[in-house]
Amino acid sequence: MTTTKVEIRTGAYYDSIILMQLQRSLAEQPGVLDAGVVMGTEANKDVLAQSDLLAPQTETAGPDDLVIVVRGQDESAAQAALEQVDELLSARSRGGVDEEYLPKSLESAVKMLPEAQWVLVSVPGRYAAGVTREALRLGKHVFLYSDNVSLGDEIELKQAAAGQGLLVMGPDCGTAIVNGVGLGFANKVRRGPVGMVAASGTGLQQVSARVHQLGGGFTAALGTGGRDLSEDVNAVTARQGLDLLIRDPQTRVIVLVSKPPSPQVAAELVEAARLAGKPVVVDFIGYATPVRRLDNVIFATSFDETAELAVQLASAEPQLGTRWPLALEHFAPGQRYLRGLFSGGTLAYEALLFLQAYVPAVYSNAPLDKQYRLSDSLVSQEHTIIDLGEDEFTVGRLHPMMDNDLRIRRLEKEAGDPQVAVILLDVVLGYGAHPDPAGELAPAIAAARAAASKAGRYLEVVAVVCGTDEDPQDLESQIAQLEEAGALVETSNDTAVRYAGQLVRALGTGADRGAAGSFQSVDIAVLSQPLAAVNVGLESFTESLQAQNAPVIQVDWRPPASGDEKLMSILERMKRK
Amino acid sequence: MTTTKVEIRTGAYYDSIILMQLQRSLAEQPGVLDAGVVMGTEANKDVLAQSDLLAPQTETAGPDDLVIVVRGQDESAAQAALEQVDELLSARSRGGVDEEYLPKSLESAVKMLPEAQWVLVSVPGRYAAGVTREALRLGKHVFLYSDNVSLGDEIELKQAAAGQGLLVMGPDCGTAIVNGVGLGFANKVRRGPVGMVAASGTGLQQVSARVHQLGGGFTAALGTGGRDLSEDVNAVTARQGLDLLIRDPQTRVIVLVSKPPSPQVAAELVEAARLAGKPVVVDFIGYATPVRRLDNVIFATSFDETAELAVQLASAEPQLGTRWPLALEHFAPGQRYLRGLFSGGTLAYEALLFLQAYVPAVYSNAPLDKQYRLSDSLVSQEHTIIDLGEDEFTVGRLHPMMDNDLRIRRLEKEAGDPQVAVILLDVVLGYGAHPDPAGELAPAIAAARAAASKAGRYLEVVAVVCGTDEDPQDLESQIAQLEEAGALVETSNDTAVRYAGQLVRALGTGADRGAAGSFQSVDIAVLSQPLAAVNVGLESFTESLQAQNAPVIQVDWRPPASGDEKLMSILERMKRK
Repeated sequence: MTTTKVEIRTGAYYDSIILMQLQRSLAEQPGVLDAGVVMGTEANKDVLAQSDLLAPQTETAGPDDLVIVVRGQDESAAQAALEQVDELLSARSRGGVDEEYLPKSLESAVKMLPEAQWVLVSVPGRYAAGVTREALRLGKHVFLYSDNVSLGDEIELKQAAAGQGLLVMGPDCGTAIVNGVGLGFANKVRRGPVGMVAASGTGLQQVSARVHQLGGGFTAALGTGGRDLSEDVNAVTARQGLDLLIRDPQTRVIVLVSKPPSPQVAAELVEAARLAGKPVVVDFIGYATPVRRLDNVIFATSFDETAELAVQLASAEPQLGTRWPLALEHFAPGQRYLRGLFSGGTLAYEALLFLQAYVPAVYSNAPLDKQYRLSDSLVSQEHTIIDLGEDEFTVGRLHPMMDNDLRIRRLEKEAGDPQVAVILLDVVLGYGAHPDPAGELAPAIAAARAAASKAGRYLEVVAVVCGTDEDPQDLESQIAQLEEAGALVETSNDTAVRYAGQLVRALGTGADRGAAGSFQSVDIAVLSQPLAAVNVGLESFTESLQAQNAPVIQVDWRPPASGDEKLMSILERMKRK
Repeated sequence: MTTTKVEIRTGAYYDSIILMQLQRSLAEQPGVLDAGVVMGTEANKDVLAQSDLLAPQTETAGPDDLVIVVRGQDESAAQAALEQVDELLSARSRGGVDEEYLPKSLESAVKMLPEAQWVLVSVPGRYAAGVTREALRLGKHVFLYSDNVSLGDEIELKQAAAGQGLLVMGPDCGTAIVNGVGLGFANKVRRGPVGMVAASGTGLQQVSARVHQLGGGFTAALGTGGRDLSEDVNAVTARQGLDLLIRDPQTRVIVLVSKPPSPQVAAELVEAARLAGKPVVVDFIGYATPVRRLDNVIFATSFDETAELAVQLASAEPQLGTRWPLALEHFAPGQRYLRGLFSGGTLAYEALLFLQAYVPAVYSNAPLDKQYRLSDSLVSQEHTIIDLGEDEFTVGRLHPMMDNDLRIRRLEKEAGDPQVAVILLDVVLGYGAHPDPAGELAPAIAAARAAASKAGRYLEVVAVVCGTDEDPQDLESQIAQLEEAGALVETSNDTAVRYAGQLVRALGTGADRGAAGSFQSVDIAVLSQPLAAVNVGLESFTESLQAQNAPVIQVDWRPPASGDEKLMSILERMKRK
């Protein structure tokens, strides 16, 4: 009859590689059917139960106790295996890095490898914050692989680091690539012009692997831990990383990836990304945006798409400027508002949609958001987009695509408002429309601009001409008439509206959005100095760095105070003074 | 001193072109500074006030009264102008289409041009529903340009039409292109393989103009009126239009455009579009989607992007199939669920994100939506995605990228569930990860598949390998080992998850979503027969059709019962019997 035998070791510390190896060795002992070696958390006990490895004694084990379970084909086999535990554990320790020569503390390791800018921490979660604090005290950036670190510790550590110009990537940061060296789990990828910040381990790996598969490469790929874009953590590390990549001249395209973020934190990070001066591809899982592109920021919704966009953008000269130069100096003080006078309802809606990204509020008689409905369609307020084709304007009156009268009257009025800087118009050509709209609108535009000029102001008129070279009105001559009147003319509503948006944003009404959190800038040298590190925890990470020819020292770490919680907290408090 | 004089004509009917021309003629009379000719709605009176054209008498005018206002430089000039009104009106009527030969009713017009499939209606809103009803009675499709038509009338008309296999495009439908002929406002664009359905006038025009500018062209562009995708109207016309374009062999790419839609109605239309069997580009203003692509459906967020995608997709052979053929016949009855066992948390999240589009619910220990949290992470239910790297699984245990033990145990268990059809795994390579994950996973996969096979089932195992050709594990041999074990292997999470999603959707758990509303199919001949039409309302639309060489008859329409509301409703009720 099969028998399950259990041994519980209280207060013993072994790292998780040793536990895995012990479990495997036990399972290979003669007459053993299965074995389990875990810390005695409830979750782990549930896992044991799933594998039929639960015995009554395991119930008494707590999270700090090591539980060793063996199921043998009979009692003697199980017992014999358990008696091997000490020997198996000591056999293991002889196989690894030679422990004799390892420093026993982080402090002494740092003295042995003073060029180390990084400390890798992969000790069990309950000890990880303490090791990270120690690393920050020593002035080192931290790659914090450990999970099971509290949110409170994460916030405290990241804020402390940010104040010192240091990075804490993590907790639960699985991966990063710094100056060509992979930390933690990292695919080997080409060097290249893409830089990434990822609140996501396998997001970073999938994007970096696919960029490599597509022929691209990386300056750096910085992990932040999966909670970085939560409301509580507030993207401290992502902001630092983004700032680094913005300043890094080698990085031509930035990629931002995150597990499902707080929408508010995500939006703020996007606002910071808009100031990057380079293309930024954003893939925040589940973060749905009403537009796919905000100037230099493009939203992707899969890692494949993210990688493709990054590679495309890195190989092309990005178009980051506005359609026309923003000649802010032309405007008089106080000129700041946009007035859109549309004959096309959907063009008006599209304008409203795009403008959301440039100014806080746009009023309309047909708003996307009810709170911005004009109280009187005939009176604009602040930024306003009017759809002159709405039912209210067309009872017994021709549509504004046929009859320019109402629009010309409104144009005169808006142009006389000293706070107005930009007038946006659509001019829709084609069958059914006015046979020569520019013939009526152009003189009105010229007159409006002249009147503003006479009053010491500058009036920018932007016209979207919707038409083709085969339309009866003759597209080219329509454009020429409007341009002669001083209008800026585009055939794309998208381009015209974004220019108008950028202009009024620059004129000040959209300012102060998305101010980044304040932090001490991280020295950009961290991206280009040869990486050296001290590793505290999983020895396999030391082996990985060695395989990549990066200088590394493994600390022969043991829990402080032999893992005793009370003693640990006293020691910690003493150190912090 | 300037004087404003007013004349009010009660119960008089003139179409809006005549009113515009009268206003212009009055403004050109000697000594006249400005003039206004409008129906006496409150909105119109407000507009008059804006132009300083309000006098006390206008207050008494109602919505059915014609208000004629003249501001003269003195009383006699204003008075003289007003006295010209009758003469100006009669001069106008001699200039247009020769009214002598025009049919007085829709019915007689249809007899004169029996090949007309379409009736264009652009009479004032309050009369438009009646004319449309008449057209439907005569078995004609309707292009309903008129606005100010009630929502109730719209619903009634569209449902009646749908029951007859007829289209009512509108109300407030500004534009359409049918068999190369533009109706209402329409840009002249090339013929080509793109077909469009638009609940948006200038959206249709902007997209069609830009497709033309990019060298593309259209089979048809069908308007629906801007309210079609509202909850009340429920996309009756858009569904009919989509169905037509799906059946039309000339249409290779479909574009759907809408003013801000009801999210629910939009989602249903998208589900119908997924069955198109051809690429569909969707641009619904403000309709934000968590993923950019659902199989054949791609979401755009600007008209420019929509046009670019349509042209690209029309020139390429679209990739519509799944990554691997869906061999449903392999599975035993009852096999229907997907189980994802991920080592990468963000790959698991991305899988959850994509799977939302294929099945109604996916449970997880790290769900995107809390309501789908597993009550026990160790026990899957229905479709389940497990992140084995979550904190709960890693206390005192190596990460599943390093230690396959837990995953292999779970794989065995899932494979033994007779309801499971597909197992999805990620295999993450790179520094730090297991030196040979396939070496452990492949035998487990082979064993799981063999066990299922022995039990009379088929187990599809899909593996996403995240890695590069430079990774220490050797990407190619990892893939080869997994494939030898019978797994389908991809390096893209995106592709792998979508295949798994399509498979379980096809196995039946995702069925019955997005069933289209039922309607009598519209005869596809409407897209290819030479367009002929009867026009009721704006004469300029007749002129436009003539300019496009389309046979057209203008009806010399007058309001029924001279516009008397009560009499109209009696007449209407008599006709409906």
